[in-house]
Amino acid sequence: MNWIQKKVVLRPKPRGFHLVTGELLEHLPELHSLRVGLAHFFIQHTSASLSLNENADPSVRTDMEAHFNKIVPENAPYFEHIYEGADDMPAHIKAVMIGPSLSLPITDGRLNLGTWQGIYLCEHRNRGGARKVVVTIWGSTD
Amino acid sequence: MNWIQKKVVLRPKPRGFHLVTGELLEHLPELHSLRVGLAHFFIQHTSASLSLNENADPSVRTDMEAHFNKIVPENAPYFEHIYEGADDMPAHIKAVMIGPSLSLPITDGRLNLGTWQGIYLCEHRNRGGARKVVVTIWGSTD
Amino acid sequence: MNWIQKKVVLRPKPRGFHLVTGELLEHLPELHSLRVGLAHFFIQHTSASLSLNENADPSVRTDMEAHFNKIVPENAPYFEHIYEGADDMPAHIKAVMIGPSLSLPITDGRLNLGTWQGIYLCEHRNRGGARKVVVTIWGSTD
Repeated sequence: MNWIQKKVVLRPKPRGFHLVTGELLEHLPELHSLRVGLAHFFIQHTSASLSLNENADPSVRTDMEAHFNKIVPENAPYFEHIYEGADDMPAHIKAVMIGPSLSLPITDGRLNLGTWQGIYLCEHRNRGGARKVVVTIWGSTD
Repeated sequence: MNWIQKKVVLRPKPRGFHLVTGELLEHLPELHSLRVGLAHFFIQHTSASLSLNENADPSVRTDMEAHFNKIVPENAPYFEHIYEGADDMPAHIKAVMIGPSLSLPITDGRLNLGTWQGIYLCEHRNRGGARKVVVTIWGSTD
Repeated sequence: MNWIQKKVVLRPKPRGFHLVTGELLEHLPELHSLRVGLAHFFIQHTSASLSLNENADPSVRTDMEAHFNKIVPENAPYFEHIYEGADDMPAHIKAVMIGPSLSLPITDGRLNLGTWQGIYLCEHRNRGGARKVVVTIWGSTD
């Protein structure tokens, strides 16, 4: 049983859905040593989230942003938590809807994703800054 | 520490929410050998998802389909990713809302679910075909 | 490799989003013995869910409840599963949107949460009663 845990800091990104598979994996060369295992990605923030979806056409990601803005609009008349900006409370709600973590299977030293799957950083704030992700990997080398 | 990992192919299902606890478990006899552990189910697709909910009344599942169609309707005027059919972009959004994986506790050789809980395959495409699920199980036999 | 698994019963709470980090952790002194690991929290119900969000301003939690009620209103005309009360089918839908489990990293004997993160019990029923959570913790002591 092998455990690897590290904090990865993702570069600041504008509000929207961003493909970050490559940016995360460049920090995780240890993953190659595992024959079978799990990789857990956990974002330490309450206004951004991690998800998995289409890794090809960028319009999937802009449509995603457009639709979540429709479902969770700014300035809802019943919002009371408004003093951190109009984008703040919607960001918390989207974070609860999408979730703070991803658990992905490792097979033969690689994330065992489907052909079209990529990891999304869902940045719900206009200027969220750098985002911290705790990555925990465990598994068997034989 | 024991690791079991396999790919299970779920039979094609029409669009909607489907109870698949039995169909998954028939592929996982190894689960019975674990006293304590976790089972991780990961769907390798971007337009279907896995969830857990009521395993009894089928109207819960048809209401679920009706409401997700209401929240994420086809043909939203702002969708740009439209060339794979009207059901495609809504499928991606629902997949992000519901998520691609389930982690469930194992206790004394069984999934430790509540009385009314069952695993749902959430098929968001009209004709999604067979769906691949990577199942990873790890735990202790004593 | 160490495994700890127990069932924690959360005290009954009214409908809404509740911070339960402290109530859960008081049952988990064993967590302190792990240098690195994972903690998995799984709610054995289909009308309540677990999530993670802001642990400070309580208005985040009341706004959360207000907005999920807006997205998933009671008495939608197409609901068929209505005989358990107007709050029942919306509770199932919210449970699928938010999810039944949380996986959190353990580092040096503590949940490695961000400064503003706390665990939410999302109680979607008017009177859900006590809620059972299966907690599974595994990791390495060295």
